[in-house]
Amino acid sequence: MEVVKVEIGARAYPIYVGAGCLRELGARLAETRCGVRVAVVTNSTIADLYLARALASLSAADFEPAAIQIPDGEEHKNLAWLAFVYDKLIDAGVERGGAVVALGGGVVGDLAGFAAATYLRGIPCVQLPTTLLAQVDSAIGGKTGINHPAGKNLIGAFAQPRFVLADVELLRTLPRREFTAGLAEVVKYGVILDPDLFALLEDQLPAVQRLDHELLVRVVRTCCTLKALVVGEDETESGYRAILNFGHTIGHALESLTDYKRYLHGEAVAIGMLAAARISCRLGLCGDAEYQRIHKLVQRSGLPSEIPADIGGEPLALAMRTDKKARGGAINFVCIEGIGKTRFERLSCEDIVKYAA
Amino acid sequence: MEVVKVEIGARAYPIYVGAGCLRELGARLAETRCGVRVAVVTNSTIADLYLARALASLSAADFEPAAIQIPDGEEHKNLAWLAFVYDKLIDAGVERGGAVVALGGGVVGDLAGFAAATYLRGIPCVQLPTTLLAQVDSAIGGKTGINHPAGKNLIGAFAQPRFVLADVELLRTLPRREFTAGLAEVVKYGVILDPDLFALLEDQLPAVQRLDHELLVRVVRTCCTLKALVVGEDETESGYRAILNFGHTIGHALESLTDYKRYLHGEAVAIGMLAAARISCRLGLCGDAEYQRIHKLVQRSGLPSEIPADIGGEPLALAMRTDKKARGGAINFVCIEGIGKTRFERLSCEDIVKYAA
Repeated sequence: MEVVKVEIGARAYPIYVGAGCLRELGARLAETRCGVRVAVVTNSTIADLYLARALASLSAADFEPAAIQIPDGEEHKNLAWLAFVYDKLIDAGVERGGAVVALGGGVVGDLAGFAAATYLRGIPCVQLPTTLLAQVDSAIGGKTGINHPAGKNLIGAFAQPRFVLADVELLRTLPRREFTAGLAEVVKYGVILDPDLFALLEDQLPAVQRLDHELLVRVVRTCCTLKALVVGEDETESGYRAILNFGHTIGHALESLTDYKRYLHGEAVAIGMLAAARISCRLGLCGDAEYQRIHKLVQRSGLPSEIPADIGGEPLALAMRTDKKARGGAINFVCIEGIGKTRFERLSCEDIVKYAA
Repeated sequence: MEVVKVEIGARAYPIYVGAGCLRELGARLAETRCGVRVAVVTNSTIADLYLARALASLSAADFEPAAIQIPDGEEHKNLAWLAFVYDKLIDAGVERGGAVVALGGGVVGDLAGFAAATYLRGIPCVQLPTTLLAQVDSAIGGKTGINHPAGKNLIGAFAQPRFVLADVELLRTLPRREFTAGLAEVVKYGVILDPDLFALLEDQLPAVQRLDHELLVRVVRTCCTLKALVVGEDETESGYRAILNFGHTIGHALESLTDYKRYLHGEAVAIGMLAAARISCRLGLCGDAEYQRIHKLVQRSGLPSEIPADIGGEPLALAMRTDKKARGGAINFVCIEGIGKTRFERLSCEDIVKYAA
């Protein structure tokens, strides 16, 4: 098992990456000296696969774990299911000294993390991500929250977990489409921060897609290290951290315009990344050869690459205006100056749409 | 106008105390360099009295303020009205750079503060308390939150305001019963931290009750200074800050058992303080003479002093067990060793009830 440290002062915490490390959950949680009444929040799909193992590991370490199940799917990351989790935490008698274990993908991690951040004004949370996307991105860095009918993640809090346990073995049961969507975020780290990771993916994509454990641990650990560095620099996204939003401005708008139904998050981000790379080319920041490398890797990964023809420029610009990063109709847009180097450009939503075409 | 500084590192902020300083709201907010789209959250009662003045002060400083009104009363400090405030913040187009101004008593301050702490993962909040209780206590220190059917403030966050503006002139329109309830928290500061404040109240109670401005500014400023010192020591109540809960364990239980209808918060706290003082006497920590001084001041203030006969010991103990400070059925109970000196005693809920009798 490998350990990546997220360094943010008093809130520093480790990310454990390994194959089969779910069985260590109880022992690791015991090291945090939290109380015995803890709750595992998960969804119905993951519950069938891994809940028993998570509870067994906790019980073996003398915890008294309760299980809280929400339905599977982004549409349940809302205030109603948050209220449900609050109710169940109270029913389970989880006290201030207790903890919440988020066992699932981004939806469970965000919702359970936000519940933990606000239950009794905040109790410890542990992230146990079961998707590639969550292992390399959403479980790390303390962004928690829920969606609002008006937009994604409009309600939430910054609250760092006590630790993250990323078990790549769990990815075996992940639907292929979701694994591929997670790859989009892996590609993103390469594009914005790490030419070596990008080259590794170009080289070893088939082995990654075959879920070679050693390679997966290496890839996940690398992504975690990169995200940890960024979050350590800028915990609450006052500036630098926003580079992680590369591809997300347009990605979020696409998800919102298609009611979060047509695309998985990573798929929308893949389209958004290529659009952002095109914008960077138009602005003369990035060369065409590098755009082509990104385009090729995205396509080989099995990810979508084009803004669909049925989505017009005007609705796209309008959707971006309600992005919580928008200020006065303009966005600090993440561009690239080649692979591994980013740069912010203040662009109006209309210009983003125009240059992305 | 006097300024008290709350010193908590990067989150340090000023409390302005004065008579008539509501008119300075816009100018003070402008100093924080926040965006122009801001929202004033208030209740229907306060809206009639002070909303126009607050909005005028903001507009005069070039803000574009929206007003968000919730109904008056503790029963509206819940998830449904929180959701309403989120909706209105979105409708008003408040962005990350914006701000929430909480204009009201504890309910508005807690709910609006929590909404600000979680809207777009946190935007700045300004507290403009309109009750004595809020001016000396709830508006300071960053405790925000809402109630749950299972208990008070079970959902919330620690989020410090950008500043607090305490205008004692606003207390003129405060119903007498609410002013008196606020006095309970003032008495509390004297009992736990400041024998001089306690003596001042013994001396000058009638002038305080006549709302003498100079004296009120002095009393409010003293309370703010004391609370600022405690919060500066221990922002998230990991230890020392809990002394502020003197009288609150039993107070909260009484409020909960009477469905938050019979007592105002301060009234329940007054009963709880005297009970805690009696417990301290029984444990040999506090002398009877000092208990009698507290009892006399509480009674002269017009506050209730006895646990009502219709509330039995068993339900009282049970209500305390669901207090979010309870751990394993026991509470780190705040006792006194005389006026101005506290001490924690770990007591079971049953013992608390027994010794309080």
